[in-house]
Amino acid sequence: METRRPTNPAAEEILGLYFPVLDHGFVALVDYMGSDEDVERAARVSYGYGTRRTSETRGLIRYLRRHRHTTPSEMVELKLHCAMPIFVARQWIRHRTANLNEVSGRYSLLPLLFYRPEPQHLQAQSATNRQGRGAELPRALYAEAVERWERVRRLAAEHYEWLVQRDVARELARIDLPLSTYTQWYWKIDLHNLLHFLSVRADPHAQYEIRAFARVMAGMLKRVAPLSFEAWVDYELTGTHLSRGELDALRRLVVVAGRDLEARPGARVGAEELAALGLSKREVDELLAKLASTPAADDFDLDLSTARPAEHFARLMEAAVPRVDRK
Amino acid sequence: METRRPTNPAAEEILGLYFPVLDHGFVALVDYMGSDEDVERAARVSYGYGTRRTSETRGLIRYLRRHRHTTPSEMVELKLHCAMPIFVARQWIRHRTANLNEVSGRYSLLPLLFYRPEPQHLQAQSATNRQGRGAELPRALYAEAVERWERVRRLAAEHYEWLVQRDVARELARIDLPLSTYTQWYWKIDLHNLLHFLSVRADPHAQYEIRAFARVMAGMLKRVAPLSFEAWVDYELTGTHLSRGELDALRRLVVVAGRDLEARPGARVGAEELAALGLSKREVDELLAKLASTPAADDFDLDLSTARPAEHFARLMEAAVPRVDRK
Amino acid sequence: METRRPTNPAAEEILGLYFPVLDHGFVALVDYMGSDEDVERAARVSYGYGTRRTSETRGLIRYLRRHRHTTPSEMVELKLHCAMPIFVARQWIRHRTANLNEVSGRYSLLPLLFYRPEPQHLQAQSATNRQGRGAELPRALYAEAVERWERVRRLAAEHYEWLVQRDVARELARIDLPLSTYTQWYWKIDLHNLLHFLSVRADPHAQYEIRAFARVMAGMLKRVAPLSFEAWVDYELTGTHLSRGELDALRRLVVVAGRDLEARPGARVGAEELAALGLSKREVDELLAKLASTPAADDFDLDLSTARPAEHFARLMEAAVPRVDRK
Amino acid sequence: METRRPTNPAAEEILGLYFPVLDHGFVALVDYMGSDEDVERAARVSYGYGTRRTSETRGLIRYLRRHRHTTPSEMVELKLHCAMPIFVARQWIRHRTANLNEVSGRYSLLPLLFYRPEPQHLQAQSATNRQGRGAELPRALYAEAVERWERVRRLAAEHYEWLVQRDVARELARIDLPLSTYTQWYWKIDLHNLLHFLSVRADPHAQYEIRAFARVMAGMLKRVAPLSFEAWVDYELTGTHLSRGELDALRRLVVVAGRDLEARPGARVGAEELAALGLSKREVDELLAKLASTPAADDFDLDLSTARPAEHFARLMEAAVPRVDRK
Repeated sequence: METRRPTNPAAEEILGLYFPVLDHGFVALVDYMGSDEDVERAARVSYGYGTRRTSETRGLIRYLRRHRHTTPSEMVELKLHCAMPIFVARQWIRHRTANLNEVSGRYSLLPLLFYRPEPQHLQAQSATNRQGRGAELPRALYAEAVERWERVRRLAAEHYEWLVQRDVARELARIDLPLSTYTQWYWKIDLHNLLHFLSVRADPHAQYEIRAFARVMAGMLKRVAPLSFEAWVDYELTGTHLSRGELDALRRLVVVAGRDLEARPGARVGAEELAALGLSKREVDELLAKLASTPAADDFDLDLSTARPAEHFARLMEAAVPRVDRK
Repeated sequence: METRRPTNPAAEEILGLYFPVLDHGFVALVDYMGSDEDVERAARVSYGYGTRRTSETRGLIRYLRRHRHTTPSEMVELKLHCAMPIFVARQWIRHRTANLNEVSGRYSLLPLLFYRPEPQHLQAQSATNRQGRGAELPRALYAEAVERWERVRRLAAEHYEWLVQRDVARELARIDLPLSTYTQWYWKIDLHNLLHFLSVRADPHAQYEIRAFARVMAGMLKRVAPLSFEAWVDYELTGTHLSRGELDALRRLVVVAGRDLEARPGARVGAEELAALGLSKREVDELLAKLASTPAADDFDLDLSTARPAEHFARLMEAAVPRVDRK
Repeated sequence: METRRPTNPAAEEILGLYFPVLDHGFVALVDYMGSDEDVERAARVSYGYGTRRTSETRGLIRYLRRHRHTTPSEMVELKLHCAMPIFVARQWIRHRTANLNEVSGRYSLLPLLFYRPEPQHLQAQSATNRQGRGAELPRALYAEAVERWERVRRLAAEHYEWLVQRDVARELARIDLPLSTYTQWYWKIDLHNLLHFLSVRADPHAQYEIRAFARVMAGMLKRVAPLSFEAWVDYELTGTHLSRGELDALRRLVVVAGRDLEARPGARVGAEELAALGLSKREVDELLAKLASTPAADDFDLDLSTARPAEHFARLMEAAVPRVDRK
Repeated sequence: METRRPTNPAAEEILGLYFPVLDHGFVALVDYMGSDEDVERAARVSYGYGTRRTSETRGLIRYLRRHRHTTPSEMVELKLHCAMPIFVARQWIRHRTANLNEVSGRYSLLPLLFYRPEPQHLQAQSATNRQGRGAELPRALYAEAVERWERVRRLAAEHYEWLVQRDVARELARIDLPLSTYTQWYWKIDLHNLLHFLSVRADPHAQYEIRAFARVMAGMLKRVAPLSFEAWVDYELTGTHLSRGELDALRRLVVVAGRDLEARPGARVGAEELAALGLSKREVDELLAKLASTPAADDFDLDLSTARPAEHFARLMEAAVPRVDRK
């Protein structure tokens, strides 16, 4: 269709494509409003799109992000259609500053699709962190876990079908479906809040399953607003935050010499000194990790060859809804 | 403790009491800020608490509600500790304008408590509405449903215990727990948003299980801000909204005579006339229902004899957490 | 430009046109996301746009509005560029659920444009209401008011120019500009929140000046989402809310007879009876007014002949910025 | 009064005291909900207040802040009564996640009090920054500025009085009051959003006048939730954020040696190398400033000797409202 709205060819290319995530989930960009140019336009409160060069737009966007002037980035909006297991949906919905319409289990019969982790994702409780995953577990355990998963799900699915066939209200029939059951929703969010979502959910401390969704959304954002995406990678994702104590430790190691930085000859900050600066053992670990090495960065590029049309998932979902001949 | 903050004796009386809801859930008021007087103080932006009579405060609060001046009611805040089945939690959390901390299944082992409906709540899918419940179902069906519920839950619980005993990360072990599993959270909300929550969730169209929670919260609010509660009952809960078409129908039936209202002699508005006013068949049904009779109103009074101390529920929850001897 | 996003010809027609409001203000629709079809798509969580007929979409949208299922309407978004006097901006910004970028008086020199009311809008303090306007005032008074307005503004403008010419920080130089000074912003809001804004600000109780802006925005919405607009007019703008007491009064005057409504023969509800139903004198006045007559409804159609290109206002604003040769 | 609500002696001590800010403004803490213990209780979703030691609470609160787990801090709420010039109110209200009731100029006659800057605050437009203030200006200029301020305000005040005496609607009479006019409001905000407000508004880049208010609010927060306050000072206020490029520069200067940090012998990162890491000239300036020295930190302690009772300000405001004998 023809439009006078600002458009973005890289975003148009993926519009309406459904990208698979996990075993039965997906994320699709169904609409977007604005791009990097609109962030600049709002920041300047200017009349229309001008003759600004990309390098100027880039500079402004980086300045805004660095100084946390986030309101102009609220002027870009993305609308997504997504399907995910309920336990993922429950983490996702904690981000309140978004618009959401979820399929209703009171109104509709639900497709009986369940998430089954891949072997490499069946991991032990993290030993260093008190939540999250650590070491991989033996394959023999995986085989037995799969068998048990199947058993619970089969029983839950049979129970659901049994109830709806006896005309039990759907809002009750569903109450024993497991948290691994897939649900789906439309989700609309502005760029500022999406970047916050990605900072939290693309982080290695996030649960693997929601990270898989965040990764695809980051790839979509890269096409809608590439300069904003780049600034987020540089300042948030691969940047860090330092406390006063951490900063003071560095000030003892580094000297400002004119417009250069120099290592202060012979300077060393040991464990006691870090403790004296107020850093707990855990904070020292965190500081050492920050300085140890540059983490390899994901490029978040989408693989278009994996994308499917809407109909593909519409059919899969439809086929998984139980047939009801009421008894 | 001694305080210079505004307090409310009726609210103090229930502070920290845990009111049971459904088979294993509860709602407790753990803190509150302000009451009806503070709504007035904010509306007038006045200095301190004055010599206003209750009748004046009541008049102002009713005026504010009638004219949807809702910002002063945002000045009162309630903090609750609640436990509810996950499928209830999922409806509840759709109210975004609240603060919430839920127990983490990534960090903690979860108590294995599941919601089992009472016989009278096992109802058929509503025939008139396309969601919700209608007729009660045979007791024989209930007996079999209970047996099936027990089977699914026993298996899901065993599976959860089996996984955590093998040190599988808790964030994964939980994914086959059913939606009937109880969770709990702290929830803090202002009076304006709580009234909106209650309007939606104490409504007969809400699912029975969340209504049971809304009912108790309404009883708590009645003690924190009784005049605001009364205005909500009169204007929202037992009031109604009329469209232009409905209003035009009534204008044909009722005459304003000075300061009296009179039935217009011989006036009758039939089905065709209602259709001509733009009312669909469904809207006509709704209008007839509104005018048919005054619904019996719940008084929302709390039964203090049912309340338990925090320790009661703390013990029950603790006892339901699986014991783990890691294998 | 070519797009795969949903577009709407009636909205495209006004995209980027600047509609004048008051003496120097404007509203322009600079982008939009979605329309009525997208409300339906979100409500059904359906895959893509289908073969639904407009009459079905209309029925669903009216049902959603009637039952306050407002989340699907959050899926439509409008972005506006607006200029308004600061006292209007201060009322506008009370609507918190929107995105906003205002021109910065710390960074930029401000155009010195001031709002001057038309003679018919110089009205007395309302006698019936304790805020708002009542009777029109004598033209002689207007002439003198204009002269005084001019004097205050001339002095304030001179003072601003004098300070910025002496290099006083702009954030300080501006502090004596009057509330009638024009400011401008980009404002982005979803359909649900825009309808709430319009309900409050297109209401006769709103200050005339902000109503003038709401009127134009309603006309824009009518082009973006005509069915949602129509439902809002029928259920909100020209509908009403009745309290329990008001409803009980009507139940005494009207009988439900099968599917017809009949005036109850000889029924009359007088002042004492209304008082006994709990209605204050003021509420009785409000009820009589609701039933008296159908108010003439505005059609909110935009007059395209008044629209100007962005450059028109860009030039006017630019010309009103003081020239600074720093002294 | 006696309460079972959690209380905090240091907060009780200042409850209801009005602290002067600028020439006619104030901030008063009128109510609060919860303190550091309640942040912990919500984070643990625990039953009641326990036997936790302060050092454990402190450790948890610092962990939460460091890892941006901000939801538990939303469980603490502060309610303030504040008076400030309108240009300050306009910056303040941009923080949308708060509850607010402002005095209405449509309903009430406004006190005619205006903000006059002190000599040392009449500064030039910043040369390095494109907003904000730089060098102080000559006292001779100040004397003339004061004279001009007085003239504008006197005229605006006379105009306001003239209009209201002729019964012109207050909503219109006020439109030529300058932005320096004082207004007042009740403002309620949770701890998480208050800390964000303080990060932005206690920052040296914020306009001096709003910083003066932020300073007092920080002092109040220090009494309500001292551990949360301390964590905010250490991690936010005196901490910093580093981009990938900045972090990479530091990695070239500092070596992790076991659990010690060492300056890398002879390491130097010059201007070209910083540019090669992606830092613009402005970012290099910012990095050098971060490492140069530890800024002197404000302790934010309140001076109780300046506090006044509510009646003091109530009288001042009342005395500044114009007397109206309608003509």
